Amino acid sequence: MTFRATVLTLYPDMFPGALGLSLAGRALEQGVWSLETVQIRDFAMDRHRTVDDTPAGGGAGMVMRADIMARAIDHAAPAGDPRPRLLMSPRGKPLTQARVRQLAAGPGAVIVCGRFEGVDQRVIDARGLEEVSIGDYILSGGEPAALVLLDAVVRLLPGVMGNEASGAEESFEGGLLEHPHYTRPQEWEGCTIPEVLTSGNHAKIAAWRREQAERLTRERRPDLLEKRAVPQPVTK
Amino acid sequence: MTFRATVLTLYPDMFPGALGLSLAGRALEQGVWSLETVQIRDFAMDRHRTVDDTPAGGGAGMVMRADIMARAIDHAAPAGDPRPRLLMSPRGKPLTQARVRQLAAGPGAVIVCGRFEGVDQRVIDARGLEEVSIGDYILSGGEPAALVLLDAVVRLLPGVMGNEASGAEESFEGGLLEHPHYTRPQEWEGCTIPEVLTSGNHAKIAAWRREQAERLTRERRPDLLEKRAVPQPVTK
Repeated sequence: MTFRATVLTLYPDMFPGALGLSLAGRALEQGVWSLETVQIRDFAMDRHRTVDDTPAGGGAGMVMRADIMARAIDHAAPAGDPRPRLLMSPRGKPLTQARVRQLAAGPGAVIVCGRFEGVDQRVIDARGLEEVSIGDYILSGGEPAALVLLDAVVRLLPGVMGNEASGAEESFEGGLLEHPHYTRPQEWEGCTIPEVLTSGNHAKIAAWRREQAERLTRERRPDLLEKRAVPQPVTK
Repeated sequence: MTFRATVLTLYPDMFPGALGLSLAGRALEQGVWSLETVQIRDFAMDRHRTVDDTPAGGGAGMVMRADIMARAIDHAAPAGDPRPRLLMSPRGKPLTQARVRQLAAGPGAVIVCGRFEGVDQRVIDARGLEEVSIGDYILSGGEPAALVLLDAVVRLLPGVMGNEASGAEESFEGGLLEHPHYTRPQEWEGCTIPEVLTSGNHAKIAAWRREQAERLTRERRPDLLEKRAVPQPVTK
């Protein structure tokens, strides 16, 4: 079954972009997934092909119109299309690897890329758009975020990773950052690979990696440890 | 002064990608910023142009070699290059709008895109690479993350946003998600723009937007509110 991605954008030329190369690009050629872009501007109703207007209540920037956006969405995903409808937005729920895995297990995604100040709230509500944020920073538009989301999803589709299957997920999904990596040469600029890693003792190696993962997570992302923490039962 | 970006990658064709269009693309043409890619593979030392090897201690995937990566970095950013050296990695510190602003105020960035399982820790340490994560999900490589980071930075460079200067930052950097947006038409599919926004009463509009921003943040991102919370002084 092909994972079907449809991206609604004012910049269809941004796609497939990086997704046309490497793992995702090969998978696209092989039909593991498909990518269609819809130019939102094609659904404008005046001869200037206007898609935005000034914000009600005043303020900077422009807002994408509900009516135009709805026409584009209804064209891309008519009633009955089972795919989730995502709107890339810094106001959204932060994207997690768990949500990426869910999406990869589904039929595809309809991804709306906002631009300007944002999208009229009425179309978000009326068309059930799920707002997704890839991080706490502001982009020029939803397009780079859509590229990131699709890259994360596509690598999980069956057959895409092949032999490159990685341990990174397991570590990350277990709520810890990954341990440091080393490879040959054994010595480089006077630094050697930590001895334990060349000891051949698998139990010790596993323990060392676990310790390192915990240390790194404690240092850099204590928030991840808090999420994992099992509440202590109150005892008398 | 031009913001100089140098990206070290195994996929130079992924750049400028989306950054060659729209705001970032125009700014690139105008010389507001520059983008150079360095093919890491050009610094390999065998005829197969190998850049990776199996992980010391065993396990899935491949690790990018310290020696090859160091040669590429030393070429791209010789001693004295004042630019920060970033390594895009899910193990890194989460990217924030504050860090984006800092980067945009600086001379540029040298951005290393990891692939495979990761990069030998020794070169991260020896070359002072700052690990940066754009979010808690796994990508096929650092390239889509580098595109996102550069997009976020470039839009803040002087002259890039022009009249499109947005209120989104202020809201976001203030630690709240942005309020909902509305624009014409006044009525769409039976839904009208909230009355307050068309009242002309600026104080009421500002108060409504603030309330909405707080509500959204409480519902979706209570973690942001915790970060903002000013500790209550203890009074007797």
